Amino acid sequence: MSSSPEKKSTVTAESPEGYQWVGKSEIRPDGVEKVTGRAKFGADFTLPGTLVGKILRSPHAHADIISINTAKAEQLPGVKAIITAKDFPEIPPSEALIGGEPPNMADLSDNILARNKVLYDGHAIAAVAATSAAIADEALALIEVEYNVLPHVIDVEDAMAEGAPILHNDLFTDGVHPKPDAPSNIAKRVTQKVGDTASGFEQADVIVEGSFTTAAVHQGYIEPHAAIATFNEDGQLQIWCSSQGQFMVRAYTAKVLGMEIAQIRVNPLEIGGGFGGKTTIYLEPVAALLAKKSARPVKLVMTRDEVLRASGPTSGSKITLKIGATRDGKLVAAEGELKYQAGAYPGSPVMLGCMCAFACYELPNMFLVGYDVVSNRPKCAAYRAPGAPMIAFAVESLLDDIANQLGMDPLQFRLHNAVEEGSKATYGPKFRQIGFKETLQAALNHPHYSAPLGENQGRGVASGFWFNIGGPTTAALNINEDGTAVLVSGNPDIGGSRASLALMAAEKLGIDYAQVRPIVADTASVSYSMHTGGSRVTFSSGMAISQAADNIITDLKRRAAKIWDIDPEHVRWEDGMAIGPSHDSIAEGGQEEQQVEQQLSLKELAASSAKTGGPIGSSVSLTATGAGPGFGTHIVDVEVDPDTGYTTILRYTAVQDVGKAIHPAYVEGQLQGGVAQGIGWALNEEYIYDKNGKLLNSGFLDYRMPVASDLPMIDTVLVEVPNPRHPFGVRGVGEVPIVPVMGAVANAVKQATGKRPVELPMSPPKMVKLLQEG
Amino acid sequence: MSSSPEKKSTVTAESPEGYQWVGKSEIRPDGVEKVTGRAKFGADFTLPGTLVGKILRSPHAHADIISINTAKAEQLPGVKAIITAKDFPEIPPSEALIGGEPPNMADLSDNILARNKVLYDGHAIAAVAATSAAIADEALALIEVEYNVLPHVIDVEDAMAEGAPILHNDLFTDGVHPKPDAPSNIAKRVTQKVGDTASGFEQADVIVEGSFTTAAVHQGYIEPHAAIATFNEDGQLQIWCSSQGQFMVRAYTAKVLGMEIAQIRVNPLEIGGGFGGKTTIYLEPVAALLAKKSARPVKLVMTRDEVLRASGPTSGSKITLKIGATRDGKLVAAEGELKYQAGAYPGSPVMLGCMCAFACYELPNMFLVGYDVVSNRPKCAAYRAPGAPMIAFAVESLLDDIANQLGMDPLQFRLHNAVEEGSKATYGPKFRQIGFKETLQAALNHPHYSAPLGENQGRGVASGFWFNIGGPTTAALNINEDGTAVLVSGNPDIGGSRASLALMAAEKLGIDYAQVRPIVADTASVSYSMHTGGSRVTFSSGMAISQAADNIITDLKRRAAKIWDIDPEHVRWEDGMAIGPSHDSIAEGGQEEQQVEQQLSLKELAASSAKTGGPIGSSVSLTATGAGPGFGTHIVDVEVDPDTGYTTILRYTAVQDVGKAIHPAYVEGQLQGGVAQGIGWALNEEYIYDKNGKLLNSGFLDYRMPVASDLPMIDTVLVEVPNPRHPFGVRGVGEVPIVPVMGAVANAVKQATGKRPVELPMSPPKMVKLLQEG
Repeated sequence: MSSSPEKKSTVTAESPEGYQWVGKSEIRPDGVEKVTGRAKFGADFTLPGTLVGKILRSPHAHADIISINTAKAEQLPGVKAIITAKDFPEIPPSEALIGGEPPNMADLSDNILARNKVLYDGHAIAAVAATSAAIADEALALIEVEYNVLPHVIDVEDAMAEGAPILHNDLFTDGVHPKPDAPSNIAKRVTQKVGDTASGFEQADVIVEGSFTTAAVHQGYIEPHAAIATFNEDGQLQIWCSSQGQFMVRAYTAKVLGMEIAQIRVNPLEIGGGFGGKTTIYLEPVAALLAKKSARPVKLVMTRDEVLRASGPTSGSKITLKIGATRDGKLVAAEGELKYQAGAYPGSPVMLGCMCAFACYELPNMFLVGYDVVSNRPKCAAYRAPGAPMIAFAVESLLDDIANQLGMDPLQFRLHNAVEEGSKATYGPKFRQIGFKETLQAALNHPHYSAPLGENQGRGVASGFWFNIGGPTTAALNINEDGTAVLVSGNPDIGGSRASLALMAAEKLGIDYAQVRPIVADTASVSYSMHTGGSRVTFSSGMAISQAADNIITDLKRRAAKIWDIDPEHVRWEDGMAIGPSHDSIAEGGQEEQQVEQQLSLKELAASSAKTGGPIGSSVSLTATGAGPGFGTHIVDVEVDPDTGYTTILRYTAVQDVGKAIHPAYVEGQLQGGVAQGIGWALNEEYIYDKNGKLLNSGFLDYRMPVASDLPMIDTVLVEVPNPRHPFGVRGVGEVPIVPVMGAVANAVKQATGKRPVELPMSPPKMVKLLQEG
Repeated sequence: MSSSPEKKSTVTAESPEGYQWVGKSEIRPDGVEKVTGRAKFGADFTLPGTLVGKILRSPHAHADIISINTAKAEQLPGVKAIITAKDFPEIPPSEALIGGEPPNMADLSDNILARNKVLYDGHAIAAVAATSAAIADEALALIEVEYNVLPHVIDVEDAMAEGAPILHNDLFTDGVHPKPDAPSNIAKRVTQKVGDTASGFEQADVIVEGSFTTAAVHQGYIEPHAAIATFNEDGQLQIWCSSQGQFMVRAYTAKVLGMEIAQIRVNPLEIGGGFGGKTTIYLEPVAALLAKKSARPVKLVMTRDEVLRASGPTSGSKITLKIGATRDGKLVAAEGELKYQAGAYPGSPVMLGCMCAFACYELPNMFLVGYDVVSNRPKCAAYRAPGAPMIAFAVESLLDDIANQLGMDPLQFRLHNAVEEGSKATYGPKFRQIGFKETLQAALNHPHYSAPLGENQGRGVASGFWFNIGGPTTAALNINEDGTAVLVSGNPDIGGSRASLALMAAEKLGIDYAQVRPIVADTASVSYSMHTGGSRVTFSSGMAISQAADNIITDLKRRAAKIWDIDPEHVRWEDGMAIGPSHDSIAEGGQEEQQVEQQLSLKELAASSAKTGGPIGSSVSLTATGAGPGFGTHIVDVEVDPDTGYTTILRYTAVQDVGKAIHPAYVEGQLQGGVAQGIGWALNEEYIYDKNGKLLNSGFLDYRMPVASDLPMIDTVLVEVPNPRHPFGVRGVGEVPIVPVMGAVANAVKQATGKRPVELPMSPPKMVKLLQEG
C-alpha cells in the first residue's frame, strides 16, 4: 500500500532544512531480501537435525490439573523429549519481577506451561519434541491429562461480580484500602486525578455521558510465533526467533529457566509483524528445554489457531464516562471508570488508558478509576498504543456529542481545548514543543473536511495521543576499510528502522545512504537494547547512532589533524571530508581565508586507519530520554447500509505530528497501518466464545481482519514539529495512528445514521441492532 | 596431549602476583561444543537448498589455457551455475594491493581461478554448482579445456637458472640494479646488512659454512578449506567459512569481486587449524559467484587432495651460509644466501627469513641476500613463524659446529652470544625486556640436559626467535543486566583466545571467569580486526579487552558515585565491587579511615543500569603496538637406527619466554603443537613431484605427518618475562616453538651419527644416504 503522490502532503514547522538524506524515502536495506523471499522469518529458519516441537493445550477455559501422564507418549518411537511445567523452576513471588518491573515472570512461566491450573482455552500444558510433525501430534494425543473442570468467566464485568469464579486464589486486589481479605479477579484498582471534578461539573453547561464496550482484538501479525533452540551440554542455550526484542527474549528466558544471561544467545530473525504482541515470550523456554532433554535442535511454530487462542490480544474493555463543558466550549470536568480485561493473569494496560484518556486536552478536573481484571481469556499483550484506543473511543465519541450539543464544529471544538507547548498534561508533566494544534489546523484546512457527502454517509473526526518512549539502547557504527559503513542495531526492524537509522548515519557522516549497511545484531554481538516498541527505536537508536557518528567524526578530524600535523580544532567535517589548513599555512600565521586548505575523504581516512589509531567505529549505549509525545487527528467518511448495517469506509485522512519524518514513506506506512488495524477493531474484530469458554473464531476466516478490498487509499498528512530533544527532531510515529480510529469511525457512523454506536465492533449484526433501536 | 604435571615447570621473572584468574588454566568456553561435535566447522555448516560446488583443476604443471568450453556441462540437468576466471573482474596492477600491502590481489584472483595460464598441478580453472556431488563431478568431466602444455620447473635453483621456463612474462626481478630487461622467475632480491662482513671474517678464528635444503611442507590443518555463500538480488553477499580472519575474507573477497565491503558479511565458523595457511582465500569468491549465478546457497569443501595440491604450503628453500667466530666464542660475522620458493606467484617469506636469521644473537657483521623465486608449485602461504624455521635450521646447525670446534657447550656458546635487553637486533631495533638468556639458562639447568644417553643416541639444542605482532584490533565487553558479561572478539579463536581473553576480562572486572561468555563475532557485528596470525590475538585483543574493562570500571565507579551522590574520585573498584564512602561521611569531613563505606556489586550496578545511563559496555578499537619478541630454546634426544636410518624422538623439552602465560595449559599446547609440527618438518614431510610436475603424495597416507605414536610427551618450560608494553605482560607464544625444532633435531642426529644432516626431511631414505656418505 503506498500513498498516491498527488494526495500526499507534508506540513513542516521549523524543520531544519538542507538535509542530504534525512527526509528521503530511500529503498529499505532489507527490501529485496523480503520481496524475493530470501529473508528468514521465525518459521523459515532451520538447523540440520531439528526436531518438531508441538504443544498440548487445554480444551477447558478453567480447570485444575489433577495429573499429567506422559508415559505412553514417551514410549512412542520418534518422541525425543516431553516437558511439562515441572521442568521449569518455580519462581518465588519475591523474584518474579525483573528490575522490579512487570511483567511478572512467575505468571509468564505459568502462562508458558500451566503448572496447577489451566486458565483459558488453549493454555499450554505440555510439549513434545519428535522426529516428525505426525509423531509429535500422535504423542500429544497420548498424553493423559486429568482435569477438574471449574466454572469459568469471560466477560470483564462478570469477572468483577460478586461470586464470580476466582482464577487465582492468591490474587488480592491491589490499590484499595483497606486491603481486601478475599481473593478477587480484580488485580488492581488505579486512579488518575486532576483538580476536583465535583466543582468542575458545577461549572459545566453541558454534560454528556455514556457507557462503551470494546472487544478484545488480536494484533493479527501475519507471522505466527516461532522459535528454534539448541542447548549444549555445558548449559549454553542458543535461540533463533522472531520477536520485538532479542534482549527481551534473553532476559525472560533466563528468568523462566533460572539461567544466567551469559548462558543464552538469542539470534533475531526477521519479524513478520508484532504490534506489541511480540514483546513477550511463549515458545522460547519450551524449545530450550525440549532441546536440552533431546540434545537436538527443536523448533516450535504456532498455528494460527494457537496464535489466536493463546497469544496475547489487547484488552477488551467496559468504560463509563461523563464529560462536562461550558457553553463556550471549554472542557471543565470528566469522570469515568475503565474496566480492562487482563486475560488470565494481571496486567492490562488500564493505567495507560487512564493516562492517555484526556492527554490531548486542557482539562482542569478529572477523576478516572481503572480496574485490571483477570478472566478466562489468554493473557493480554501489548498492542499498538496499549490502553489508549479503547478510552479514546469513549472520549472522542462524547466530545463529538458535546460539540454537537454546542453547535460547534468538532475540530474547532477540539482546537479550542487542545494542549500546546506549556500545557500541563492530565497525566502529569508539562508538554514541551508538540504539534497537536497543527494537526487539527491541517485537518480543518484539508479538502477532505469540506468534501460533499451523499445519502447514508457521514463524516467523523477524532484525535489521539501517545507518549512515545525512549529507554536503554545500544547502537554502533563501524567504518569499513574502504569507507563504507556498517550500522549495528540491537533492535528488530519492524517499521523500517534499518532505513531510518541508515539515513541518519549517512546524513551525519556525509556518505551515500547505500554505503551504510544496517544490521540487527544478536544478543552476544552488541550490548543491551530494550525491545522494539513504544515507538522508541528510530528515536532512541537514532540518538545513539547520531552520537556514534559524532564520535566518529571527532575521531576522523583527530586522525586528519595527525596526518597533517595540525591541531584537531582546525579541522572541520563537511560532506564526508575532513577539511583543514595545511601545517605550513598555520605556521605562517596567515588569515584563515588565505590558508591553503587540504582535504581527506572518509574513504582515504578509512584506508589509513591502521596507522592513525586503529579501526574506526563507535558503539553508543544510552538510556534515551526526551521522547516527544505524538498527536494525530483523523477524518473518515463512511456509508452505512441501512438494511444490512454494513459500513463502508469511503475516505480516510490521517493527520499526525510525526516530528521530523526521517523516512517519509515509512512514516506514512505507519499511519496507514495503524488506521487499517483501527478500522478492523472498529468494524469487525472480536473474540467469540461459546458457553464453555471455547474460542469459536480462532482463524482468519472467522476472525475478520480488514483486507485490501475493505479499505480505500488511506491518505496521510505528515505534520512535522520536530522533537527538540532529539538531534534530528524524531518523535515516535507508530502508535498514535491507531488511537483515533474507532472514535472517528463511530462519529462518522453517528452522522450517517443518527445513532451513537457504543459497542465495538460496529459489525453488521451490531449495527442492525443499533439502527433498530429507539 | 597434556603435559605431565611432574615435569611441568614455570620460571617466572618479575611477574605481577596476586592474580585471581590470569594464569589459571580454566576450561575453554568452546570446549564442550567441540568435544561433543556440536561446534560448526567450515564443512559442517549448511543452509536449506544449498548446492554442491566443485572445482575443475589443472592436470598440468604449466600450460596456456587456449579455451574453456562449458557448453556441454551447462546442459547437464542439475547443473545450476558454472564460472571461470572470466566472471571475475580484471584487477589492474595499480589496484592490486590493499592499502599498499601484499598480497597482490591480481595474483590472488588468478590463483583462485586461472585466467590465461595454469601454473601448477591442481590450479583451479572452473567451478560448477549442482544439485548433487555426483552431478557436479559429471559436469566437471564435461568441461572441455584446451591446453598448450609448457615446460615446467619445480625446484628453486632450477627456476633461477638461465633458460628456465618462465612462469610470468611480466615478472621482472625487483631489488636489483640495473633493472633487468628480461622476465625472470626471481621475483625479488632482498638484503639484510649489519656492519662489514669482510672485516668481520678477518677477526674470525673459526669459520664454518654449509649449504642447506628444506622441503616445502604443508600446514596440515585437520580441517579442509570450506565456504558457503549466498548472494542476494540486491548484491548483498554473505559468506560462512572457516578462516583465520573473517575481515580478511571480507576484504579479499571484496577486492577479487570488485565489491564494496559494506555489501559483504562474513560469518566465522570454527576453525580446525590454520597455522597461517588460512590467512588467505581460495573458495570464497568462487562460492559467491556460483551463488549469484544460481540464486542458491553454494557450498565448496576441498578434498585433502585439493588442500595439498592447491593450498599454500610454506616455502621450500636452499640456503648457503658461512659463520665466523673468535676463539673465545664470540660471533663476528655471517654471510649467506637464502633462496625461498614462492610457489606460482611471488611472495615467499624470504625477507622474514633474513630478518630472523640471527635475531637471537649479538652479531656485529652480517650480510644476507634473499631471493623470492616462483616455480610451478602452489603459491606458498604463511606457516607458523613464516620464513624463520628454514634459516634457523641452517644457523643453528652451523652454530653447533662452531661450538664443537671450539669445544664449548652449545648452550653456553649461545648464552655467550645471546641478545638481551638493550641489544640491537640484526633486523634493526633495540630489544626491550626479553627473556632469551633466561630460556638458555633454564635449558642448561634442566635435568633433561644432563640425562644419560645410550648407543646411537644424540642430544641437540637449538634456539629460535619470532617477532610477534600487534595490529588493528577491536574487542568489546558488554555487561548483561544480571552482571554476567559477553566478550566480543573479531578474531577467530585458534589457540584458545576465547579463554585467554575471558580470563583477562574476569581479572579486571573481578567477576567469575565462567560469567564471561566470549564469542567470535561476524564482520557486520563488530568493527575491524586484522586476522588471527603472527601470534597477535591474546596480545592485541587482550590489550583492547583490558582497555574495555578499564572503561567499564570507570563507568561503574561513576554510576556508583551517582547513586551515592558522591564524587566518582572517591569510589574504588575491588573484587567486582564499587566501594566508596557514604555521602554523609564525606560531608562530615571525617578522616578516610573513619568513613562509613558502602558497596555496590557489578550485579547490582548492572541491574540498575537503565537508570544510571543505559547499558554498560565498551568496544575498543586500536592498533596494538609493543608486541614483545619471543625466544625459545629446545633440547631433543634422538636415536637413529644405523640400518634403516629411522630417527626416533626420545625426549623433547621446549623452553620459551612466553611473557605472562595467561592460560598456561594453552601456552603449553602451543609449544607442544609447534614442536610436533617441527618434528614432521624435520623428519618426514615433503612434496614429491613426478617428472611432469604432478604432486605424487597428495594425501595423508603419503604426505607423512607425525601422529601421536611418533612422538614422546613434549615437555615444556614456561619462562615468564612479562612484556612491559602489555597490561598483563602478554607476548605471542604460538610461532616461536616451531623455529628451533629442525636445528635441534639435526644437531641431535649429528651427535648420534657423527654426520651433519643438511637436507630436510631427515627421512629414512635420506638418512641412509647420509650414513653411507664419506
